[in-house]
Amino acid sequence: MKKCSEKLDNLPIPKILFEDSVKSALKEDIGTGDVTTSALIHPDTWGSARIIAKEDGILAGLFVAMETFLQVDDTISFEEALSEGSFFKKGQELLVIKGRVSSMLLAERVALNFLQRLCGIATLTKEFVERIKDLNTRIVGTRKTTPGLKILEKYAIRIGGGCNHRMNLSDGILIKDNHIAAVGSIKDAVRRARNYSPHTLKVEIEVTDINDLKEAINKGADIVMLDNIKPEQIKKAVEVAKKIRKDVLLEASGGVTLENVREIAKTGVDIISVGALTHSFKSIDLSLKINILEPNVSNSR
Amino acid sequence: MKKCSEKLDNLPIPKILFEDSVKSALKEDIGTGDVTTSALIHPDTWGSARIIAKEDGILAGLFVAMETFLQVDDTISFEEALSEGSFFKKGQELLVIKGRVSSMLLAERVALNFLQRLCGIATLTKEFVERIKDLNTRIVGTRKTTPGLKILEKYAIRIGGGCNHRMNLSDGILIKDNHIAAVGSIKDAVRRARNYSPHTLKVEIEVTDINDLKEAINKGADIVMLDNIKPEQIKKAVEVAKKIRKDVLLEASGGVTLENVREIAKTGVDIISVGALTHSFKSIDLSLKINILEPNVSNSR
Amino acid sequence: MKKCSEKLDNLPIPKILFEDSVKSALKEDIGTGDVTTSALIHPDTWGSARIIAKEDGILAGLFVAMETFLQVDDTISFEEALSEGSFFKKGQELLVIKGRVSSMLLAERVALNFLQRLCGIATLTKEFVERIKDLNTRIVGTRKTTPGLKILEKYAIRIGGGCNHRMNLSDGILIKDNHIAAVGSIKDAVRRARNYSPHTLKVEIEVTDINDLKEAINKGADIVMLDNIKPEQIKKAVEVAKKIRKDVLLEASGGVTLENVREIAKTGVDIISVGALTHSFKSIDLSLKINILEPNVSNSR
Amino acid sequence: MKKCSEKLDNLPIPKILFEDSVKSALKEDIGTGDVTTSALIHPDTWGSARIIAKEDGILAGLFVAMETFLQVDDTISFEEALSEGSFFKKGQELLVIKGRVSSMLLAERVALNFLQRLCGIATLTKEFVERIKDLNTRIVGTRKTTPGLKILEKYAIRIGGGCNHRMNLSDGILIKDNHIAAVGSIKDAVRRARNYSPHTLKVEIEVTDINDLKEAINKGADIVMLDNIKPEQIKKAVEVAKKIRKDVLLEASGGVTLENVREIAKTGVDIISVGALTHSFKSIDLSLKINILEPNVSNSR
Amino acid sequence: MKKCSEKLDNLPIPKILFEDSVKSALKEDIGTGDVTTSALIHPDTWGSARIIAKEDGILAGLFVAMETFLQVDDTISFEEALSEGSFFKKGQELLVIKGRVSSMLLAERVALNFLQRLCGIATLTKEFVERIKDLNTRIVGTRKTTPGLKILEKYAIRIGGGCNHRMNLSDGILIKDNHIAAVGSIKDAVRRARNYSPHTLKVEIEVTDINDLKEAINKGADIVMLDNIKPEQIKKAVEVAKKIRKDVLLEASGGVTLENVREIAKTGVDIISVGALTHSFKSIDLSLKINILEPNVSNSR
Amino acid sequence: MKKCSEKLDNLPIPKILFEDSVKSALKEDIGTGDVTTSALIHPDTWGSARIIAKEDGILAGLFVAMETFLQVDDTISFEEALSEGSFFKKGQELLVIKGRVSSMLLAERVALNFLQRLCGIATLTKEFVERIKDLNTRIVGTRKTTPGLKILEKYAIRIGGGCNHRMNLSDGILIKDNHIAAVGSIKDAVRRARNYSPHTLKVEIEVTDINDLKEAINKGADIVMLDNIKPEQIKKAVEVAKKIRKDVLLEASGGVTLENVREIAKTGVDIISVGALTHSFKSIDLSLKINILEPNVSNSR
Repeated sequence: MKKCSEKLDNLPIPKILFEDSVKSALKEDIGTGDVTTSALIHPDTWGSARIIAKEDGILAGLFVAMETFLQVDDTISFEEALSEGSFFKKGQELLVIKGRVSSMLLAERVALNFLQRLCGIATLTKEFVERIKDLNTRIVGTRKTTPGLKILEKYAIRIGGGCNHRMNLSDGILIKDNHIAAVGSIKDAVRRARNYSPHTLKVEIEVTDINDLKEAINKGADIVMLDNIKPEQIKKAVEVAKKIRKDVLLEASGGVTLENVREIAKTGVDIISVGALTHSFKSIDLSLKINILEPNVSNSR
Repeated sequence: MKKCSEKLDNLPIPKILFEDSVKSALKEDIGTGDVTTSALIHPDTWGSARIIAKEDGILAGLFVAMETFLQVDDTISFEEALSEGSFFKKGQELLVIKGRVSSMLLAERVALNFLQRLCGIATLTKEFVERIKDLNTRIVGTRKTTPGLKILEKYAIRIGGGCNHRMNLSDGILIKDNHIAAVGSIKDAVRRARNYSPHTLKVEIEVTDINDLKEAINKGADIVMLDNIKPEQIKKAVEVAKKIRKDVLLEASGGVTLENVREIAKTGVDIISVGALTHSFKSIDLSLKINILEPNVSNSR
Repeated sequence: MKKCSEKLDNLPIPKILFEDSVKSALKEDIGTGDVTTSALIHPDTWGSARIIAKEDGILAGLFVAMETFLQVDDTISFEEALSEGSFFKKGQELLVIKGRVSSMLLAERVALNFLQRLCGIATLTKEFVERIKDLNTRIVGTRKTTPGLKILEKYAIRIGGGCNHRMNLSDGILIKDNHIAAVGSIKDAVRRARNYSPHTLKVEIEVTDINDLKEAINKGADIVMLDNIKPEQIKKAVEVAKKIRKDVLLEASGGVTLENVREIAKTGVDIISVGALTHSFKSIDLSLKINILEPNVSNSR
Repeated sequence: MKKCSEKLDNLPIPKILFEDSVKSALKEDIGTGDVTTSALIHPDTWGSARIIAKEDGILAGLFVAMETFLQVDDTISFEEALSEGSFFKKGQELLVIKGRVSSMLLAERVALNFLQRLCGIATLTKEFVERIKDLNTRIVGTRKTTPGLKILEKYAIRIGGGCNHRMNLSDGILIKDNHIAAVGSIKDAVRRARNYSPHTLKVEIEVTDINDLKEAINKGADIVMLDNIKPEQIKKAVEVAKKIRKDVLLEASGGVTLENVREIAKTGVDIISVGALTHSFKSIDLSLKINILEPNVSNSR
Repeated sequence: MKKCSEKLDNLPIPKILFEDSVKSALKEDIGTGDVTTSALIHPDTWGSARIIAKEDGILAGLFVAMETFLQVDDTISFEEALSEGSFFKKGQELLVIKGRVSSMLLAERVALNFLQRLCGIATLTKEFVERIKDLNTRIVGTRKTTPGLKILEKYAIRIGGGCNHRMNLSDGILIKDNHIAAVGSIKDAVRRARNYSPHTLKVEIEVTDINDLKEAINKGADIVMLDNIKPEQIKKAVEVAKKIRKDVLLEASGGVTLENVREIAKTGVDIISVGALTHSFKSIDLSLKINILEPNVSNSR
Repeated sequence: MKKCSEKLDNLPIPKILFEDSVKSALKEDIGTGDVTTSALIHPDTWGSARIIAKEDGILAGLFVAMETFLQVDDTISFEEALSEGSFFKKGQELLVIKGRVSSMLLAERVALNFLQRLCGIATLTKEFVERIKDLNTRIVGTRKTTPGLKILEKYAIRIGGGCNHRMNLSDGILIKDNHIAAVGSIKDAVRRARNYSPHTLKVEIEVTDINDLKEAINKGADIVMLDNIKPEQIKKAVEVAKKIRKDVLLEASGGVTLENVREIAKTGVDIISVGALTHSFKSIDLSLKINILEPNVSNSR
């Protein structure tokens, strides 16, 4: 299957989709005010700050960090040192921020909290994508996203070279074991999904063996998820499936690691979904270094 | 320093502090409705479900998972198999849920998304705490929490045996390098913090060498953070500090790992802060298994 | 194409998806309080009320009306005279409400405002569906829904026997003339949609002539929308399209009326989308009749 | 009675009263992002767009449409082709929009959804007003407005030449049959309304026959609503009423249509309230035509 | 003019109008949690608490206090010692609260913050009302209410025996000096208000001398506000006004105190508006006394 | 103890902490629109307005008033006549506002409602502070703040020369009589607070006699609140306390008035907390005078 994002030109997220998350995060972290900065820093102290990478990674979410600073103080200005999706090295500068020092200190932690997570997700995704970059398999995330941050985390996956799966329960049909148990058979489950769902959505079903796979495809499933199946079985499943209907899509899911992703991809599966991209990534270590430009005029007090 | 939570009796969080996070997460994940379940599961299909651990861990946030199910359907009932803070083994049952199957499916992913993260944080915290359980050092989290989930994540740290540091910018004074640079000297920074801040808060300051440590304590700092200093230097710092003022608290911060935490704690430092507890934990793998109790009456359609 | 909702068993909407709309509507209509009722009706005046149809229609949204009363006063109780989707005659009773008269008066107008609109949409949809009930064509709504009421209005369409199209910009791909113009060709537009979009969504494209139709299908479009094309042309398009790929779906859109819907459906088109279902329906006339049960004890004042 | 809005100069609504409705509507329609545009349109594709009328009507709500575009992208600019309240012909241009094509596509449907409804209400109101333009009768709307859109819909009525009635339960006293039944008599109802309500509001009461009318006026009602009474009876009521007190206002309500409005107005009634203005209007058909100004630079991918 | 609230039976405010204020206040006061109670009180410590008056006053807002406790913990129960509007003496018990001690401590301050203010307003209002209880003059509040608490404060005025004026800019017409200056004359201002405003609202105008008063009434003003005029002039104004039109209402405003209110009322003015009722009242001193029922089981830790 | 705010340079509050309060207050006061201004003032009427003090006071909250005007109309501009914390005389001009007259009228009351309260609090605080300006005692507010306005009111206290106490339940430990009763002894209460609370917060405890004071300090309390104790006893307590531990802080609370504050301060107590600063202040009387700059062009209608 074609990789979904060879170029990153089209990726920005409309601000309306994340500005409230930034606002909530700021209120959560500011509490009733920054007592330290209020006591120490004169509001007319100006400076510039740099966000520095303390380890290698892929840049994702710089616009969220910038929105964080702007929500605190819209006179702050920026110089973007790198563009979204860039690889950065430890020690490299990601963003320069200019303005009131007290405003920078107010927004610093929240801006970094967003940025270090999104870079972490993009970086981990990139590692998976790189392992299989010569193969026609898409890496996709799951719905195992952090509560409240789904849109930003799914964005970071795309920045890392991964692709979209369904975002939520309404933009994709995925028939799981619990659904099949409730309906009684794969056959009826697929039929009902086709008949009673929006015609714009493909029907995906989770199976655990080859017989179920055959039945699902024969009854009209568009995508079949192979859950927690070993690579050799996946390979078998791909062969069987594509013989029945060439354009059926196969998705491998469950227990995917950097170690086994290539082996799985080599089975010819179209899609590999990796929950860890959002549930168990490591934040990229970043720091903010401030350079005071003007003396603190109230120092004499 | 005394460990902060030998017992966990007092820890529940008022619902008013997290119910909105649950509601947002549900809306985010439900989108405009669950198209799969709507097409497949009759609303009068009833069942019971079990949340099963797929790896070992410490239980944290069961009440958040329950609130998630209840927000979707307040006729759902529960049997709690374990209490908060319990250690669980792979395969163990954490919660039994009874009610409408369609409601369970609607809430499942969000409930698990909260629970697997909070268990992940508690489990990681516990590992740090266990390494130094015979020593008088507190493990605390930092402000590097997930945007929007600060209160829940700080709770999970306490469940894991960790302690509270400041939650946000308003409930603690922490003078960092950027503040000192802006003010001009440690001396003036501490003085101003004492004079112009609420008298209810202790004054904490970050230092990087022994001379600054001495000056900070002599000028009245209550807590001194030793940032990114090696164990042997921390040991030295503790000795120097306690000689100047017995009740000053010393906090080690930066680069703390499961490997080096015991060495650091053995220096006699009072507090060790670990950012990774919330920025780079691994979610605990959990699954929900549903048992259909009543036949799906609309099956015939 | 199979009709989507022969039975209505599976249709209830989770309360979390509409309770905020009800709350906003109540606040909007209550303003700072009901000055008339406050001056006239003693809070201990009890009664029962009936919602009566003043014209024929299809019942949709009774649960929204009930939620409206309950948000004002959760001691109110109901007797549902009819179930969702039922046909009702002028003069028929839809719902009996019991409780405080002042609470009923507070919620009355908002409850009816929701109910009369949803019944209006379901009734109009039913009329379209009835015209073509022997044909294999789905009636679907569009995104021309009332701002703020999309989920409820889409629900009312399903109650009337219509089906779902995409709800919003994220749960369906629809390539329109403006997109094609920006990309440069149908071929590139379809290719890019397939390569750079979630694999779970089908690709739909709007065309206005047979050549474009052919190109769209040959390049892999799953659904083709025939916009504002006359029935005879639609018929031609259906023949051409199904010859190229049997499972491609054809959708007719634009200028569909109760008068021409049957003629359009007879072309063999799979889907007919009707904007008027939500942008130009007529509300069903309903009224609330209250029966005072207990004398107004404060009457003497 | 004097018509209320010979000129429309004073009519703009403060943005604070409708900006949240626009934001909700955008979020509802964007979902998690515009998958079609993201895949197809480069963010640096610029263009201009025109909103074109596809049928005749009265312009109302252009500022709401503009606010919709601006909430998505505040770099968009406009040329207003017509001013609020203008009559437009099929094919006429209402607004020119300039900026990023992807932003236009994101806001398009919501902007039109607001505009087509508000124009629909203004146009229908205008038709009623025109029928009686030589008579001293006001056309007013009712509280049968769309949940969530009351302020905008009431505005559209004024744009169409209609007048304000009470907006909600707190800015007008209207004693209805249910109130009278609860109190026991018209006499007591009017007395209590006068004594226990704000002195700034007039007292209106609904009556169904001449005797009740007399009693209501004699007891001090300022406005009498004649509900569902035939024109000849209304005429009689007006004569009787004005004889008792010259400045009492008479309002006819119920079953008013374009066909009978003139006959009703000719009775000399001061006010005619028409629920259909907001509960059963027809949206005006509008479309957005985009002209791509710059080639899509990412076309080569 | 008739006093507006001889009995208080009809006064409860719908919860939907104040529950969000309570929620915001709780979140504001809880911050990230009650650190003192968490450390000290076992959640299974049960008790009863009494709200005691520490000075005399009029009870207003008990239901707001109860809602505050219930939002924190819906298992709390109450015994209301007094009903709204009652006079209480220093030392008297107002409410008994039973349930978890930790929940009481969490809600205590916010509940009292609401209650002490509403009692303060009711008590002050009562003092004004008592001074003129034998006269036909209404005491009303103004729009000088505390931001965010308007509905509750207006309620407290009614509990104290005061009456409603307009609540906000939309439910009353009040032509002030600035309006007259902008329009050019009293005559035009009154004419335009009558012609271009909702017919349900009376027209009130502020005047400062007898000539303006005459013109205002002659042009059709329903209510005339005499701003900052001395009692002897008010008396003159009342005589002149009632001669021109018997049912015109006269309102005195500005500089009203407990000392001069009786003198002003004796002029025969219908309404006296007192800004101080809400902008400069004194809170009634209240305290909460808790009685621990069960031993703190975790005491041993 | 050192006074906390000799200079006011560092005091501005981040807009994110109060902008929502302003928005709510505006919506509350605008209702569905300003009917008077809409009928009378042409939107193209421009003018300037001055906020004038009608009594002496201390300026606090000018930025809140300005934010109020800007939320209604962001084309309004200002000239600040005085800076925060300035003393103003009756008749003095505080702020000049330029722009649309209709916008000024829309925001006027809300802007003044905020400003008059914040000035009232600052002015009252200043009176307390002035009485003891030569003594080393801080005046602090309590948690008895107006629901919803805590941050602004605490700010006004600082402007008046007062200091911060804890803002809410999470940023300070205060062990009260109810806590001690539940725990069983002062000794255990202090011990548990030290062991189970964040190490960043000092431990404060309320006592009512000298023996309890001694026990509290000996067990490690950092601050002791002397509740409702007479000056002579406070003096005794201060002596005893400072002898035990020099750096313990003593706070007097309860029944503090302008009359007795100096006597209390002279006891040597470090902090005096005054609930009346926020629960029983008097608003400063302010008015807005508008000067119409351009003729009302629609006057002719």
